[in-house]
Amino acid sequence: MSDKKFVEEITSMDVDFAKWYTDICVKAELIEYTSVKGCMVLRPYGCAIWENIRDILDRRFKELGHENVCMPLFIPESLLQKEKDHVKGFAPEVAWVTHGGGEELTERLCVRPTSETLFCEHYANIIHSYRDLPKLYNQWVSVVRWEKTTRPFLRTREFWWQEGHTIHATAEEAIEETERMLEVYAEFCEKTLSIPVIKGRKTESDKFAGAEATYAIEALMHDGKSLQAGTSHYFGDLFARAFEITYSNKENQKVYPFQTSWGISTRLMGGIIMAHGDNQGLVLPPDIAPVQAVIIPVAQHKSGVLEKCGEIVAGLRDYRVKLDDSDNSVGWKFAEYEMKGVPVRIEIGPRDILSESCVLVTRHDGKKETVPLTLLSDILGKKLNDVREGLFEKAKSNREKHTYDCASLDEISKRLEEHGDGFVRAMWCGGEACEEKMKELTGLSSRCIPFEGGKISDNCVICGRQAEHLVYWGKAY
Amino acid sequence: MSDKKFVEEITSMDVDFAKWYTDICVKAELIEYTSVKGCMVLRPYGCAIWENIRDILDRRFKELGHENVCMPLFIPESLLQKEKDHVKGFAPEVAWVTHGGGEELTERLCVRPTSETLFCEHYANIIHSYRDLPKLYNQWVSVVRWEKTTRPFLRTREFWWQEGHTIHATAEEAIEETERMLEVYAEFCEKTLSIPVIKGRKTESDKFAGAEATYAIEALMHDGKSLQAGTSHYFGDLFARAFEITYSNKENQKVYPFQTSWGISTRLMGGIIMAHGDNQGLVLPPDIAPVQAVIIPVAQHKSGVLEKCGEIVAGLRDYRVKLDDSDNSVGWKFAEYEMKGVPVRIEIGPRDILSESCVLVTRHDGKKETVPLTLLSDILGKKLNDVREGLFEKAKSNREKHTYDCASLDEISKRLEEHGDGFVRAMWCGGEACEEKMKELTGLSSRCIPFEGGKISDNCVICGRQAEHLVYWGKAY
Repeated sequence: MSDKKFVEEITSMDVDFAKWYTDICVKAELIEYTSVKGCMVLRPYGCAIWENIRDILDRRFKELGHENVCMPLFIPESLLQKEKDHVKGFAPEVAWVTHGGGEELTERLCVRPTSETLFCEHYANIIHSYRDLPKLYNQWVSVVRWEKTTRPFLRTREFWWQEGHTIHATAEEAIEETERMLEVYAEFCEKTLSIPVIKGRKTESDKFAGAEATYAIEALMHDGKSLQAGTSHYFGDLFARAFEITYSNKENQKVYPFQTSWGISTRLMGGIIMAHGDNQGLVLPPDIAPVQAVIIPVAQHKSGVLEKCGEIVAGLRDYRVKLDDSDNSVGWKFAEYEMKGVPVRIEIGPRDILSESCVLVTRHDGKKETVPLTLLSDILGKKLNDVREGLFEKAKSNREKHTYDCASLDEISKRLEEHGDGFVRAMWCGGEACEEKMKELTGLSSRCIPFEGGKISDNCVICGRQAEHLVYWGKAY
Repeated sequence: MSDKKFVEEITSMDVDFAKWYTDICVKAELIEYTSVKGCMVLRPYGCAIWENIRDILDRRFKELGHENVCMPLFIPESLLQKEKDHVKGFAPEVAWVTHGGGEELTERLCVRPTSETLFCEHYANIIHSYRDLPKLYNQWVSVVRWEKTTRPFLRTREFWWQEGHTIHATAEEAIEETERMLEVYAEFCEKTLSIPVIKGRKTESDKFAGAEATYAIEALMHDGKSLQAGTSHYFGDLFARAFEITYSNKENQKVYPFQTSWGISTRLMGGIIMAHGDNQGLVLPPDIAPVQAVIIPVAQHKSGVLEKCGEIVAGLRDYRVKLDDSDNSVGWKFAEYEMKGVPVRIEIGPRDILSESCVLVTRHDGKKETVPLTLLSDILGKKLNDVREGLFEKAKSNREKHTYDCASLDEISKRLEEHGDGFVRAMWCGGEACEEKMKELTGLSSRCIPFEGGKISDNCVICGRQAEHLVYWGKAY
């Protein structure tokens, strides 16, 4: 055994949360760094998680009538510049291709940071009549944003995502779509990833470049910081006007259509780590776990043990099950699959075989249960459901513990100091100056104006004027 | 109806084959052009075909133990330069990123034209011991090659593909992998896409840049030109040496591992068009057709027709079936789905309903058959199989008609003149000069040295010396 890799210890999250996070990224074999700063390799285990996320969401998008397309990687500079707010937001952080095939290009091309402009060019080509609407398109690709400071999943120069881009005859339809897709994301986060989220609207200062309104879901991480887990934008007819996309309505008049876009990205994988992970490593929600249960034979050299394990795997075809019959020690295997966040461990040895049972251990709470082999398949299904719910409850109670209703700036400082970072719910007048002042005084930025509403006090906690909105404030990734 | 688009005529392939081809690309709504030369949009219909190809092959790769990863988009110039033949082959046609985040980069980055160098860098990081081997990796991405002349699918500056990259302890294992994956491609082309292929080895002059050996499958198109439909490369330890990838073997010595790579791309979609298409449009093999059967109601305004169609769709859940109940005319619908290459059309009207039957029409041969509704699901399954076999036989007999065994240059010229372009099977001495002379005199290049071997004559058709190999020669896309 001496020449084998042993599971290395990861930094405790209480000692250094940032280090704990990157330790998990690397040691659970989700990613590896490359020689291009901020660009990572998604390794097989990380890639399999992302593929599971993709497959589940893709199915849902298609059920709702969306179709996939593949848009080009490059945007000519002149195309990027057509919508003035959009270019202002993105131009500073793009990567430019200036040479191709040994020659300088006559117009430089940016590597897409997002594809609104490409979809608009395409829509202008293919949309003529009201019969051509709506178009409900989506693509799964990587995009590039030249960030200064980078961290795996959370902020990388290249990241993978899906971007939905839809175009509709009426504003109502487009707004409905914007809201529907935010709801799809929220449901996915809560039901599939077991991450509770706040749904809300971004303030003006935090909107997507070129959008009339940006909706977002915000999740609270272990360290009390907030992660924007998905966004959905309503564009009105701003892009249509900039790109001269028109259609003939039933009265044969040329009018502008209305657009949306919405996306989730590999950021979500950072969210999974920081919402569920612990000091033993990753903890994965079952639906996206590449391995839902690992079978670890005890005393596997004894006759009958591996044969029995093989039978058990064969009986669990409804799940993604792995049998680890390698010659690593049982202790090594335990630590390895804890690190990788496999939801359920199944232990089986000679004594279990005699009693026709096995031991199930759930990763998120360490609970053990002896289970008759005849009932294993059913019980595993129930366990995975318990994990799904248990993770959600754990994350939700953590969020509740770290959500502070505050009626004054003093109260905010006090609560943060006493209980650590978290969501601050406090009233706001709607003024940008107050947002800036909040940031300056407390380090908090507005995360969203929650759809659910609510009222903590009458006045803006910053300026004292009449409050317009309840806002979730926080420190953001 | 007057304001509706009608199916537009496409150029006949006998009049202008190139125009016929691009007409199908656009009018079957596979692609749309963009303002970046050589970069296309894969529209929903084209994208759905590509997704079907991906899903079928991805499943096969995974059955064989391969795992997916996501590598970065960018390759630093110094990394690209590490393997001298590789950089010589690719550097002239790459696109360079020189600026990012508003600043000039200290080292320019190329947009990956292929990812051998990135995989090598990664392998050097993660491979230490014989226990880490083999790694069987694959990724589905787009790559960029700055081609001068471009055509949809066949030669585009950005194209989508999968690239498998594997690394093994021994040369034997790696060679086995190279051959196995070519076999996977050949089987996929013949069984799934119904395109017959020749399996063989590329000559030295036509090898992949940096490979010890390149294997390929070659298919013959309607116009007698040859399409390279997939390639599989054996690298020996050339890349391992260039990138200093070593591992400790069981004797604890540091040694070099052996590598392969293999890929198929959206080129295959050009192959499908040119192997099966006709003057009515696209003809799709059933397994990758987004719609396998379209139901077209006749006299759909009559009571009971649409209801019956709805019932029929519900009974055909094993297939991808679309009911077109739009208010377009029946004639328009026929032409539309012929253009889109839907394998089977199901017609049903009041008289069919009375007799509890419907009419099936197969796209590739236009044959009609009246079928009892009770047997429809079974018969449709059989029909789709007939289409699969029928397409293959049609393409194979076309290839046989245009494959010429020739023992002299005179014979080659004569056969090509009399019977049109095709595969020329002729003997070769193995000298590069003769390859060049063949190109000069006949316009033909070597497509491959077939695995099957064979002998047409004793001497090289070009120089008359002792022949080493039978070669398939042709005009290539």
